[in-house]
Amino acid sequence: MSDYAAPLKDMQFVIEELIGLGEISSLPEFAEVTPDLVEQVLDEAGKFAAEVLAPLNRVGDTHPAKLENGVVTTPPGFKEAYRRFVDAGWNGLAGEAEFGGQALPHIVSLAVAEIWNSANMAFCLCPMLTSGVLEALKSKGSAEQRKRFLPKLTSGDWTGTMNLTEPQAGSDLSAVRTRAEPQPDGTYKLFGQKIFITYGEHDFTENIIHLVLARTPDAPEGTRGISLFIVPKFLLDDQGRPAQRNDVRCVSIEHKMGIHASPTCVLAYGDQGGATGYLVGKENEGLRYMFIMMNHARLGVGLEGVAMAERAYQHALWYAKQRVQGRELGAKSGDRVTIIHHPDVRRMLMSMKSQTEAMRALAYTAAGALDLASHHADPEKRGQQQALVDLLTPIVKGWCTEQAVEISSLGVQIHGGMGFIEETGAAQFYRDVRITTIYEGTTGIQAMDLVSRKVAAERGATMRAVLARLAALDGQLEKAAEPDLQAIRVPLTAALKALEESTHWVVATAASAPDWVAASAVPYLKLAGTTLGGALMAQAALIASKRLSAADADVSFYRAKLHTARFYAEHMLTQAPALAQTIMTGAQSSMALEESQF
Amino acid sequence: MSDYAAPLKDMQFVIEELIGLGEISSLPEFAEVTPDLVEQVLDEAGKFAAEVLAPLNRVGDTHPAKLENGVVTTPPGFKEAYRRFVDAGWNGLAGEAEFGGQALPHIVSLAVAEIWNSANMAFCLCPMLTSGVLEALKSKGSAEQRKRFLPKLTSGDWTGTMNLTEPQAGSDLSAVRTRAEPQPDGTYKLFGQKIFITYGEHDFTENIIHLVLARTPDAPEGTRGISLFIVPKFLLDDQGRPAQRNDVRCVSIEHKMGIHASPTCVLAYGDQGGATGYLVGKENEGLRYMFIMMNHARLGVGLEGVAMAERAYQHALWYAKQRVQGRELGAKSGDRVTIIHHPDVRRMLMSMKSQTEAMRALAYTAAGALDLASHHADPEKRGQQQALVDLLTPIVKGWCTEQAVEISSLGVQIHGGMGFIEETGAAQFYRDVRITTIYEGTTGIQAMDLVSRKVAAERGATMRAVLARLAALDGQLEKAAEPDLQAIRVPLTAALKALEESTHWVVATAASAPDWVAASAVPYLKLAGTTLGGALMAQAALIASKRLSAADADVSFYRAKLHTARFYAEHMLTQAPALAQTIMTGAQSSMALEESQF
Repeated sequence: MSDYAAPLKDMQFVIEELIGLGEISSLPEFAEVTPDLVEQVLDEAGKFAAEVLAPLNRVGDTHPAKLENGVVTTPPGFKEAYRRFVDAGWNGLAGEAEFGGQALPHIVSLAVAEIWNSANMAFCLCPMLTSGVLEALKSKGSAEQRKRFLPKLTSGDWTGTMNLTEPQAGSDLSAVRTRAEPQPDGTYKLFGQKIFITYGEHDFTENIIHLVLARTPDAPEGTRGISLFIVPKFLLDDQGRPAQRNDVRCVSIEHKMGIHASPTCVLAYGDQGGATGYLVGKENEGLRYMFIMMNHARLGVGLEGVAMAERAYQHALWYAKQRVQGRELGAKSGDRVTIIHHPDVRRMLMSMKSQTEAMRALAYTAAGALDLASHHADPEKRGQQQALVDLLTPIVKGWCTEQAVEISSLGVQIHGGMGFIEETGAAQFYRDVRITTIYEGTTGIQAMDLVSRKVAAERGATMRAVLARLAALDGQLEKAAEPDLQAIRVPLTAALKALEESTHWVVATAASAPDWVAASAVPYLKLAGTTLGGALMAQAALIASKRLSAADADVSFYRAKLHTARFYAEHMLTQAPALAQTIMTGAQSSMALEESQF
Repeated sequence: MSDYAAPLKDMQFVIEELIGLGEISSLPEFAEVTPDLVEQVLDEAGKFAAEVLAPLNRVGDTHPAKLENGVVTTPPGFKEAYRRFVDAGWNGLAGEAEFGGQALPHIVSLAVAEIWNSANMAFCLCPMLTSGVLEALKSKGSAEQRKRFLPKLTSGDWTGTMNLTEPQAGSDLSAVRTRAEPQPDGTYKLFGQKIFITYGEHDFTENIIHLVLARTPDAPEGTRGISLFIVPKFLLDDQGRPAQRNDVRCVSIEHKMGIHASPTCVLAYGDQGGATGYLVGKENEGLRYMFIMMNHARLGVGLEGVAMAERAYQHALWYAKQRVQGRELGAKSGDRVTIIHHPDVRRMLMSMKSQTEAMRALAYTAAGALDLASHHADPEKRGQQQALVDLLTPIVKGWCTEQAVEISSLGVQIHGGMGFIEETGAAQFYRDVRITTIYEGTTGIQAMDLVSRKVAAERGATMRAVLARLAALDGQLEKAAEPDLQAIRVPLTAALKALEESTHWVVATAASAPDWVAASAVPYLKLAGTTLGGALMAQAALIASKRLSAADADVSFYRAKLHTARFYAEHMLTQAPALAQTIMTGAQSSMALEESQF
């Protein structure tokens, strides 16, 4: 197995040079967030990940979480690692200072999340879910609820879960049936079954705080009749300590293709008289609140895609540098060489590397925009940035995870026969990452969100604004003498045009043929991700080209960035016009068959 | 779990209408191969697969082959199924009549192999390997060897294995170290270790016939010093019955991501004094002989891609037709619908269906060409057809398996969260198929074979001849009134042009920049597969359009074929120009980084 080393250089390049920390650290909340601090935090996170989390990754795969007599046991070492994670203060990185958090900006906490996920995705699903609960309670919980639950959730002494899915209610949450009956004391009794609850039960902490979607007796049908409840595993006593066991129990856990360490639970609520729950906010507003968590979680899952792609890349690179097989192309004699010498292995490594860098750039851009949207003094700026976050969230979630699945497959491929052998580790990344295009909304759901709620609803305004800003790249690339920059220009210009025309098509077609737009939604999402990722790589290349003129430049790093951006343009951006053609002409044939003709 | 039903209609359409059985059944060897016979064979195979093999597929996944004290036990039911398979005469389908085979043409036996693989890929690796051994001994074994081994291998009473790989010799067989020491009696003693030996040990039969690559003491270095040996598990007595145990033993089996039922063995030769082996053909010619098996096996693995794609499609379709979730697009009320109503699910199903049909058409085309190449009276015709087989083999192997991996991933995706749960079955297809782009030569190896030995070596002659024949399609599509045919024309013409230009580039660049051609080899293979598959879909659509004018036409089937061909053109063929651009411009950036810059 390869060791994991956090890609600190590229992370810092993206945060400090490509996106720029300046605007974020000029916000009063983040005045202390200097490049030095960021470097220190990422460096420490990298060490913790490499030393504590990464070595447990395969242990978790081979020792899945177990359920016996209602008790879930996590893999050996996980409980201890979680304790160390909490004790080191990592859980509260983005949490509010009022509740003991360190209040770092999203651009930093998401970069740190990339590190955790690269090291051990199954482990860090637990803090990720907790952070979703924190976000929801922070904005929608009552003062009392915040006081009771946020400190322990911020520290990580308790963990949180999101309870949405039921057997009949997956992507369609309007079908939720779990009931919540109001009690005279203002609490509710919940009855029902939730499935696919990540870390719904575990042995890490003394309490688990479930956020649960349910219907009150007089709630309207559909999505407008769903409320959100806090249901702690242990009810708290007057001092806020876990006391009485609540009526929520793990009745089974799933046997999954990957992320074996993470218990995916079926939770039964109210089998013994009703689980005590506390309403969050107002009745029937639950789905809206849940989307606060969801959107946060969607960026987080997109990050998982980046993280798994990085890990699969590092692992494949390690193998390619040590596996000896064959000779240099055309050589009949002489020493045998490591497979990184072979052109097709290089192509695969470059494909993994270039896409991972583009994905990271896009995901961090969304995180940076989220910081400005949350904290900027100017409401107009906040609005613009929020619109950007809203636009980018489904793209980051959908595109980064779809590409990560392909990248992890390239990782297996580079290993040859050894890639199919479990002990090598490449197969685990391939299996683990496969969930990321599914949970927190499938790629299809992300794409529908993108084309309808994000693009068509505002007649393409934010996407057009993004494209208008990116139009300047053409002129900058034209002026550049660097051959790599010249080579980027043509495919980038074609890709931006493809995205512009496709956006126009989506806006123009949404009302007249919504099923066509729906059929073209995923290709549109892929086009958007490919193109915006490529535009960021082009910007990165322009910055690299400038930096190279400095006397003390890190020539190796910036040259690599230039070459990598060019590879991305020639291998990925080139696909954009084909996607546009499919988007604009291919919807009808998607819908042409009768059900019986399949 | 869905049931498997062999896609008999599409198989027969491809064999009888698209390729045409006429030329094959006009060969004296195949005079009895009428459409009725083909229908009967496929129908019976479909029944056997559905009743015997498919129900064992998940059993095999959950009860992997086990090794205890040198004895391999296959999953429950497998041994009995193998016996039934042999007793029903399925093993000898393509075998020579002289040795008890039924001597059916490849186009039929490969279609039957598709059925076996769809039903239970891990099971039918065993007969597939046996058939490779049959091919090699048929053409290179001595009369004595043929007489001793072929009857039992043809019937399937014994099975065969291919022993190529050693820990240091994977894709690079020149590194083989297994030794073969000549004995006074004309036999050899073999010493060494072979890995990744599929069904190298099992409990199906009383004997296993290993074909083993090894070096004799004075053999030259590299690939020219490798010889091929028969090493039976049990040496035969004078009556040809298995008698004395030979010195070859299974020392471990691999823990793999998929095909769990199939024991992948480490075989130790000669730990107790030497394993007795019999030289096949001449010394030092072994690698050439092994390629007889290999090429046969490569078409077979390409077929596995087709088969797994079909199975994943059927399974996803079954789920999409029964899973209720959400309402019709835009409907706020009314009944909830099955997910096949949702445009993105349709797009995914169409993508699976259209690609699988294109892959089947291409693979069967290669099989049909193989029949003509083997049996046609005219040597010139045989030569042309052999060149076509040689060209198509790496494309069928590389492209069909790469697409099958993506198709099985779409199958998982259509299942949503359930796709990640092992019990659903979609995950197994995804894991099982992942080996197909690796064994019998990775996609990279196939692509190098294609660009160098197939395209560049003959300056593109066969590929150009294929393209010249396909040029007629444009005129036929132009004359067609059918809108589906019109829609196919533009992307098909662009794709054929892309393949022509890329072929020209490969030929022109091979001598001056072989590393560039190597870096562009996989994109070229994908372009070739995408385009040739699309051309066959266009031909199929033209045939369908003609058939529709008949009074008693199967309107539903032919209409579906037209729509499916159009979908393929709009969603797959559109990618061809992008691939050409990558091929012709993207090689330099693949090779630009220093090793330290990765």
